[in-house]
Amino acid sequence: MEPEPLSAARRTVDLRIDAAWIAPVEPEAALAEHALLVDGGRIVALAPWDEADARYVARVHVQRLTHVLIPGLVNAHAHSAMALMRGVADDVPLAAWLTEHIWPREAAVLGPDFVHDGTLLAAAEMLAGGITACNDMYFYPEAAADAYLAAGMRAMLGVPVLDFPTRYAPDAAGYLAAGLAARDRYRREPHIVFSLAPHAPYTVGDDSWRAIVTLARELDLTIQTHLLETRKERADALTQDGRSPLARLDALGATGPGFVAIHAVHCDEDDIRMLAARHCHVVHCPASNAKLASGIAPVAAYLAAGINVALGTDGAASNNRLDLMGEMRLAALLAKATTGDAAALPAASVLRCATLGGARALGLDATIGSLVPGKAADAVAIDLADIATTPCYDPVSHLVHAAGREHVTDVWVDGAPVVTDRLVQRIDVAAVKGSAERWHARLARPPG
Amino acid sequence: MEPEPLSAARRTVDLRIDAAWIAPVEPEAALAEHALLVDGGRIVALAPWDEADARYVARVHVQRLTHVLIPGLVNAHAHSAMALMRGVADDVPLAAWLTEHIWPREAAVLGPDFVHDGTLLAAAEMLAGGITACNDMYFYPEAAADAYLAAGMRAMLGVPVLDFPTRYAPDAAGYLAAGLAARDRYRREPHIVFSLAPHAPYTVGDDSWRAIVTLARELDLTIQTHLLETRKERADALTQDGRSPLARLDALGATGPGFVAIHAVHCDEDDIRMLAARHCHVVHCPASNAKLASGIAPVAAYLAAGINVALGTDGAASNNRLDLMGEMRLAALLAKATTGDAAALPAASVLRCATLGGARALGLDATIGSLVPGKAADAVAIDLADIATTPCYDPVSHLVHAAGREHVTDVWVDGAPVVTDRLVQRIDVAAVKGSAERWHARLARPPG
Repeated sequence: MEPEPLSAARRTVDLRIDAAWIAPVEPEAALAEHALLVDGGRIVALAPWDEADARYVARVHVQRLTHVLIPGLVNAHAHSAMALMRGVADDVPLAAWLTEHIWPREAAVLGPDFVHDGTLLAAAEMLAGGITACNDMYFYPEAAADAYLAAGMRAMLGVPVLDFPTRYAPDAAGYLAAGLAARDRYRREPHIVFSLAPHAPYTVGDDSWRAIVTLARELDLTIQTHLLETRKERADALTQDGRSPLARLDALGATGPGFVAIHAVHCDEDDIRMLAARHCHVVHCPASNAKLASGIAPVAAYLAAGINVALGTDGAASNNRLDLMGEMRLAALLAKATTGDAAALPAASVLRCATLGGARALGLDATIGSLVPGKAADAVAIDLADIATTPCYDPVSHLVHAAGREHVTDVWVDGAPVVTDRLVQRIDVAAVKGSAERWHARLARPPG
Repeated sequence: MEPEPLSAARRTVDLRIDAAWIAPVEPEAALAEHALLVDGGRIVALAPWDEADARYVARVHVQRLTHVLIPGLVNAHAHSAMALMRGVADDVPLAAWLTEHIWPREAAVLGPDFVHDGTLLAAAEMLAGGITACNDMYFYPEAAADAYLAAGMRAMLGVPVLDFPTRYAPDAAGYLAAGLAARDRYRREPHIVFSLAPHAPYTVGDDSWRAIVTLARELDLTIQTHLLETRKERADALTQDGRSPLARLDALGATGPGFVAIHAVHCDEDDIRMLAARHCHVVHCPASNAKLASGIAPVAAYLAAGINVALGTDGAASNNRLDLMGEMRLAALLAKATTGDAAALPAASVLRCATLGGARALGLDATIGSLVPGKAADAVAIDLADIATTPCYDPVSHLVHAAGREHVTDVWVDGAPVVTDRLVQRIDVAAVKGSAERWHARLARPPG
């Protein structure tokens, strides 16, 4: 019997990426010498190289033979435009940092141009470091959305809500109206989603929270908020309200599987039980929490309680980098150091937080967060052939503990290249640097 | 009156390096648009560009006009050869990590070849990341010395001392004899110095400590030891001896300005007072201490007590990187998070620990550790024009919080280029990677 010619059985696909290893997150173990097959922006299959040869013909065949391929990293909390204030004030506690350094500068420059330029700067940094999706919370979300679309990144834009006026809006109703108008404008953009982002329990009163909860239910929107970032927030709430801020939000109907608690540094055992029982998500921002001396979130306890944990950078003004590989490393080190358990937050768990954990927090885990057939081909190639990653006993360990964002060489969103050979493809980096220098000149002196 | 030709007044020097900023550490503030003038391997002057034009003619003129120039970083604690075991066992507590993973593998491969090849791998990684001097503690220090000399790095080699046998030596007297013979061999090498490195209070008995103290006095050698790395070390010592290990070493005469306490994670207030009173040095290894779940050293308290603090990576088997810029960032973040004081360990202080603090601990601060006239021209250029370091409000803040070792472009030792345009000059990196792969093949499976 004649063997059937191979080509007759081979499926033509848009893209094949060969890597020394693929760490798909689902399942946890890395696959050696596998290819990712992509068609129409979606993952078709993961297959050993020889099986890929036998079953597929790719229009584009990319070989990254000393690399590990991972899902695009999800930065689950950022104030991206604040990249323009990177390092403007360090070694200052949160209250003084906000009132003396950040808010006066924001008051002087805030507007759509500032947000657009800052977000584009942030997007260039994030993409180059393997971040393909960002959960952004800032003013003028439509200006940020334009920057993400230009960059080729995914983003969840939070509709900011405060009970006090800024240049952007006069009151809670004004913030919501402006944000929902922005949401309408980007309804047809598959890379852009919106959520509701009341700033914090202590800056948004009960009436506004009720309006937000009602809207979130009507429109099926995620609610995200800064929660228990500082010890003072808990103490003040107990004094004023007799309850943890989380208990108050729960009583207002805000908690649930669409509720994202950002920071969650000072949750007690009751809070942890409530977050778990309501299937809420936590975004861990270890660098920002440490740098502002807010503390270290009990992430190992969250994971042990079954709470979904994502990772975030926070804004570059308090970090001062938008580097999720750095956050992975720091999260692992802090969990081990604070629990006294060297097995806490193993490498595979922290990689999961940085990818699938973020996707779940954003409600996007049907589309992104792991390299499984049917999901979008958002992927990152990280070169492990550097002297600093030699030798390699375990690529997943290296992702967390030896490699850095500088080892990211290629990034794809929906199978389209957005970073190639370390170069961001869709952003004019020189122009972005030029605009950053102009904002720098305006921001360098604290406003009188 | 005719102006005197400028050239008549200009001094010819070997090297001029122009940088956007120089952060000399002494003094603390960064100097904008300055040049470093070097002759005969020594720093002649730091001068504004126009003054440098007027006063000096340089045989080589290097311009790094978007960079900050800093003193070479001093890695004050490493087991460099263990770079070959980078990531061989993660997420494992210290005792199991040592007894199940590290020691069996060391027993299988330890020898001069392993130490030479591993140290060359480590040296390539360290130089590329701006580390010009390393305090190395491992077996076969002569094999390590050869690697450092080939790489063009400075090193302090610790003469290892244990009370139990390894392949390298049978007992404390054997370790000392082998180490002192190595020291004799490298007496005339200006880049190599030796110290005495008893492993730890709990692995070296009183008789051996007495012999070490006597030798250190006779030969004017630094004593360095792992001290109070784990909570268990303190508890065991109190049970067995009724004293803190530091109090025991003090009674044995080991403490003093030539005593370097590595790790010092679990010092109590009495220990801190004693370290300060005796003018001892502490080497802080934040990543290794966190990763092995040993804890977080009270560095802010050490500095407040006036103790000199240096930074170290420890070995890459427990880190898993030899990245002193990463340690700077981590040290700053941990100090802020654990004290609740955002002003703890400000950027300039942590840069001082990573340079002058290390030089003082190694007894080399007359030669290295800051960019002042008369010292050796060990310097590092770090490019702050990357998107991730844009904009720049404060170059010293960026060194700690925004830049990474990937932004190091050029490194000089004694004014001689050892890294140029990110390429290590004196090490055959491909050959080093090849040898690492061969050791990897032997080490990948835990010995039966």
